Amino acid sequence: MKTTAIVNSNIALVKYWGKRDEKLILPNNSNISVAYDKLNTITTVEFNLDYSKDIFILDSNEITDGPVFKKTTEHLNIIRQKAGIETRAKVVSKNNFPTAAGLASSASGFSALAFAGSKAAGLNLDQRELSILARLSGSGSASRSLIGGFAEWMKGEKADGSDSYAIQIAKPDYWPEFRIIVAIISEARKKTSSTDGMNLTVKTCPLYQGWLNTIEQDLENVRKGIAEKNFTLIGSTAEFNCLKMHATMITTQPSLIYWMPETLEIIHSVLDWRKQGLEGYFTIDAGPQVKIICLEKDVEEINNKLCSIPSVKKTIICKVGKEAILTDNHLF
Amino acid sequence: MKTTAIVNSNIALVKYWGKRDEKLILPNNSNISVAYDKLNTITTVEFNLDYSKDIFILDSNEITDGPVFKKTTEHLNIIRQKAGIETRAKVVSKNNFPTAAGLASSASGFSALAFAGSKAAGLNLDQRELSILARLSGSGSASRSLIGGFAEWMKGEKADGSDSYAIQIAKPDYWPEFRIIVAIISEARKKTSSTDGMNLTVKTCPLYQGWLNTIEQDLENVRKGIAEKNFTLIGSTAEFNCLKMHATMITTQPSLIYWMPETLEIIHSVLDWRKQGLEGYFTIDAGPQVKIICLEKDVEEINNKLCSIPSVKKTIICKVGKEAILTDNHLF
Repeated sequence: MKTTAIVNSNIALVKYWGKRDEKLILPNNSNISVAYDKLNTITTVEFNLDYSKDIFILDSNEITDGPVFKKTTEHLNIIRQKAGIETRAKVVSKNNFPTAAGLASSASGFSALAFAGSKAAGLNLDQRELSILARLSGSGSASRSLIGGFAEWMKGEKADGSDSYAIQIAKPDYWPEFRIIVAIISEARKKTSSTDGMNLTVKTCPLYQGWLNTIEQDLENVRKGIAEKNFTLIGSTAEFNCLKMHATMITTQPSLIYWMPETLEIIHSVLDWRKQGLEGYFTIDAGPQVKIICLEKDVEEINNKLCSIPSVKKTIICKVGKEAILTDNHLF
Repeated sequence: MKTTAIVNSNIALVKYWGKRDEKLILPNNSNISVAYDKLNTITTVEFNLDYSKDIFILDSNEITDGPVFKKTTEHLNIIRQKAGIETRAKVVSKNNFPTAAGLASSASGFSALAFAGSKAAGLNLDQRELSILARLSGSGSASRSLIGGFAEWMKGEKADGSDSYAIQIAKPDYWPEFRIIVAIISEARKKTSSTDGMNLTVKTCPLYQGWLNTIEQDLENVRKGIAEKNFTLIGSTAEFNCLKMHATMITTQPSLIYWMPETLEIIHSVLDWRKQGLEGYFTIDAGPQVKIICLEKDVEEINNKLCSIPSVKKTIICKVGKEAILTDNHLF
């Protein structure tokens, strides 16, 4: 049976960077994200005896080898094992935004694969089980993508990972004024994947412990900021959390410098605008793009300023995104 | 009596960022620099009863207030106290490079003031005493500038700072093939002075301890690299030391981002060139300029590549600079 899921991507306000268990994808720290309403992956999965091997078509290109194919097949194996089947699958997946450029395509992609794949295999998993399944894809932040709204992926304490999953801490419609502007400056794929990058940071970065030491306070600030709709608290905490993560990347050996000159131009601009009273905060993942969070009242002015920077190719203004859904609009 | 000193500026291979004593200017860590042969300050000092107040002319502009005037007067007070005089002074100083733009103008400037000023006041200090006097100016790295060649400013252990001074660890002519290319991308003055910046980092940066924990190893590597003329060891250690310092700056609250987009463009270029086999290493202080260390055999190719980057306004190719000298060519 064909099953199709649509899952929004997300941006972390408190970042995930480093695992305590590389096999079970258990993070060193809990982390909090907000879903984008306009960046999503749609994925159709069908298990069928007609297929002699797994077929994977991503953004209209058939992928037959490489790390993404391997991760996809391995994730299908986990689903098959859970469902007690051995049938091969066809997976067709499309992102409505550039893949592997620091816009969390693997978060929404593997979340959609877990959701559509498990349904197609006849499993009926609840949200906790789906979040754990998505986490096991290897793209840990996929565990947050199904959830929608503001989500916290709890690091958990157990060795088997059964308490490491994401929960919704505020609904998608909780804060209608909240905005995320995505500024796209490059659609080039990043040179070092997040997975490889974070493993290298944990192994080699002499500043990594300093990052971990401050996470609990950041989580508390962002939870409080959401609960009280204190935008300044969320924004300043998220921006500084991002800077701390990038400081650990920069001091990884060899150094991981995901910032491009254009990234830094936007960073300095956002800091300048804030000095002039325009309240936006940047956050950046393992790629060159910059996301700016702000409130509805400032979104037009910030977006206009962003669009006047020559290196900004386009912007996408998002509200808080909804949870994953199933649809009958199959991709094949 | 007029006295004139010429002092070369220097670039740290293991950086100084943070003090254990703000009054005595005692650093949290020992640090190592190399002198530039082409960036210098020339300073003439005269103590004369004709002057009713201290006069300070920097790069042809009379400075009558502000932090630089205050530091200069205070340094003259230290010299007067040592010499047992109360006479006011005229100080004329010129840098042959942009002031306060991350090229260590205060290092060579205050070093020249200490050298010329103490002589003009009738003091005859030895190198250790001069280094301590220069350190007390408030620009700690001034303690290294008098020395020439490769210099180590030892942090010292004593509370009175009497063991915190710079020594020469290799002579100026020890390594004739060693080159430092200074790439000037902006002559704008920096927004946050090094002194204010480092004090803020020590107080607020959660990653600062991680920086301190790795300094002894960096010092050992650079000392060994100099002793064995192992350029790869020096270069890779210095570059990573610079990245670690900037990581602590970025995660200072509020964030100190001295890198400009153009800085980052050169960083990425140097990393790319090295992947292609061209061995240069960048290092950057509290400003936007980038310095690249390399050996004579590669200097032309690296310099040509640098000059082809549109944002590079000019480059200055330096060899290892000599110790400070006195001259009769007074500035007034």
